[in-house]
This record gives sequence, structure tokens and C-alpha cells, in this order.
Amino acid sequence: MPLVHIALRHTTPERIAAIRDGVYAALRASFEVPENDRFILVSQHEAHEFDYDPGYLGIARSDELVFVRINCSASRGVTQKKALYRDIVERLVQSPGLRPEDVFIHLVETARENWSFGHGAMQYA
Amino acid sequence: MPLVHIALRHTTPERIAAIRDGVYAALRASFEVPENDRFILVSQHEAHEFDYDPGYLGIARSDELVFVRINCSASRGVTQKKALYRDIVERLVQSPGLRPEDVFIHLVETARENWSFGHGAMQYA
Amino acid sequence: MPLVHIALRHTTPERIAAIRDGVYAALRASFEVPENDRFILVSQHEAHEFDYDPGYLGIARSDELVFVRINCSASRGVTQKKALYRDIVERLVQSPGLRPEDVFIHLVETARENWSFGHGAMQYA
Repeated sequence: MPLVHIALRHTTPERIAAIRDGVYAALRASFEVPENDRFILVSQHEAHEFDYDPGYLGIARSDELVFVRINCSASRGVTQKKALYRDIVERLVQSPGLRPEDVFIHLVETARENWSFGHGAMQYA
Repeated sequence: MPLVHIALRHTTPERIAAIRDGVYAALRASFEVPENDRFILVSQHEAHEFDYDPGYLGIARSDELVFVRINCSASRGVTQKKALYRDIVERLVQSPGLRPEDVFIHLVETARENWSFGHGAMQYA
Repeated sequence: MPLVHIALRHTTPERIAAIRDGVYAALRASFEVPENDRFILVSQHEAHEFDYDPGYLGIARSDELVFVRINCSASRGVTQKKALYRDIVERLVQSPGLRPEDVFIHLVETARENWSFGHGAMQYA
């Protein structure tokens, strides 16, 4: 049910695959996401389409910054969200080798009834 | 007021137009959306930018999968959301001929005051 | 913390830069956004990927329409949102010279705990 959107500067398919794998693995391990509940869209941007502050909150970001927006149901608390943030960054540091400063995460929570996974049915209601 | 985002693999303008028309028609018929309240953005993705599970919840998805994200005001209940999901899929099966397994729908609800349709005014407050 | 997404037809980098600058300046001046809290993604669309009604609510939109979606924490009231809408439009009219009819704004509000700005930490909790 999470629908993930990853936004970054143009890069290689291999690097994008590693980021997708890491985010999915973290959702599985730290956010109680079921196996195979994997839906991830990626958008690649030119420099003038990708505007970030290189120092906000004292965090030194680079052009390798990755935005990870996760739309999910509103069923996790602060502790679990903290665990997810840590886990995503640990995995993306390991592969494809991102700097921990270069991972921006944002959750958009919605009701469980707000999803249809196919066939026009409301699978989660 | 719905702001729709459609994400899919690269395809033809004709196919995209049929999808846009079907989603708008379903919003009109099943979600009490006013005439001409039509705002739809489309993003087309390469294979490595478009990551979906081909079997989650027993639904056999293909590369023709279409993600339909609808940002709208929080004013409809479960019954109406179910009707919308069914209606979107029925219309997209008819034209452009999608498989019912290949339609993923997600609603993001916000307050009515969260929209400005032009002139910097808050038309719905 | 606002994560802004700007969607428009293909245009020049200069025009896009002016739009990014205007939205950020309005967020600073009218929405209590801290200095350097600037994160803006832009997507450019072909005609068949960009579907808008040219007259909904009596507002005459053109192909120069700009969608501004702002994901932010839920901490502002109606008065402040109205001020933001006005301010964004005033600035984009001034530069790059948009028509006031051609600015569509949408806010998506989330909890303060739903953000990580780097290092896998929850900076706002």
C-alpha cells in the first residue's frame, strides 16, 4: 500500500534500482509492510528542476540528494516512523552508497479506504 | 478540485487521452465532481522508473499498469469511494482497453480551504 | 519543510527559476517558513500530459498555467493560507509575468513527525 515516489537528478538505472531496493527493504523490515507490497515511481530531474538548500538545519546536501515521498495508511506512530527513517538511510548508505545527508524523507498518510490495488475493488476496507 | 496525477509507462498520446477522459468521466458520474473541474497531470516512466509488484494481493499486473492518484477534498464516504473505484476501472477497461488488474487508484484527501484555482483566491472557503 | 512540486508545460530554465524563487519568497513572507527551508521539484509536461479546464469557476486559464502543490505541516489556519495564495500569485505575476488566472495552488498537510531532512533523523518531533 505504500506508494513511493523517488525524485533525484538524472542517474544510472543501476543506481535507481539500488535505491528502490533499499526503500522497499526498509519498509518491509521497519514499517510492517507486507511482502510484495511494492509500488515505486521514480522521476529524474535536470538541475533547474531540482531545487534544494545545501545547508538547511546544518545538513550538508549535495546534488546526489534523493527525495523519498511515501504515501501510506495512517497506522504507524512516531517510534515506527523514526525507525523507518533510520533504516532507509542505513540501507541507502550501504547501497548505492549515498551520503546520510542526501536522503530526504516525507510521509503522506491517508485512510485505509483510500486505496484500490486493481479490479476497482477497495481491498483494505 | 480533484488534482489527478496519472503515472504509467511511455505510451501514445491517444492512449493517454482515453485514460484522462475515463478518469474525468468517472469523477463526474460517481464522485460529485462539478462539470469542467478537470485538472490532470501525466508522467510517463521508463522501466527502471516504474516498479510494481506483478502479483500483490493475487492481482496479476502487467507493464500496462496505470497509477491514478487523486488529490481531493475530504467530503466523500466509503460507499462513494467504492463507487468511484469501480467506475474508473469500468471506463478504462472499455477505453483504452486496460485490464482491470492494471488500474491502481489512490486518494489523498485535504481540507476544502487547501485549494486556489486562480487569481490567488481561496474559492472553496 | 514544505516540499513543493511545480508542474507546467515545457519552458525555459530562466522562467522556471523565477517561479521557484517567487514561491519560496512567498512561503518565507506569508507562511512562516524558515530561511533556507527550500525544497522544490519541477516537472515539465507535453500537451497530452497536461490537462486543465480553460474556464472552470470562470477563470480563463492558458497553456502557461502553473500547478503549485505544497506539502507542508498542518500548522496554519485559513487566514494564513489565503495570504499565501495571494502572495504567490502577486510574485509570479511580477516575475516571470504569469497571468493571475494561470496559478493553481494546492496544499497537502501532514504531521510534523512526517519529515526527515537528512541523516535518517526526525528533526521536527
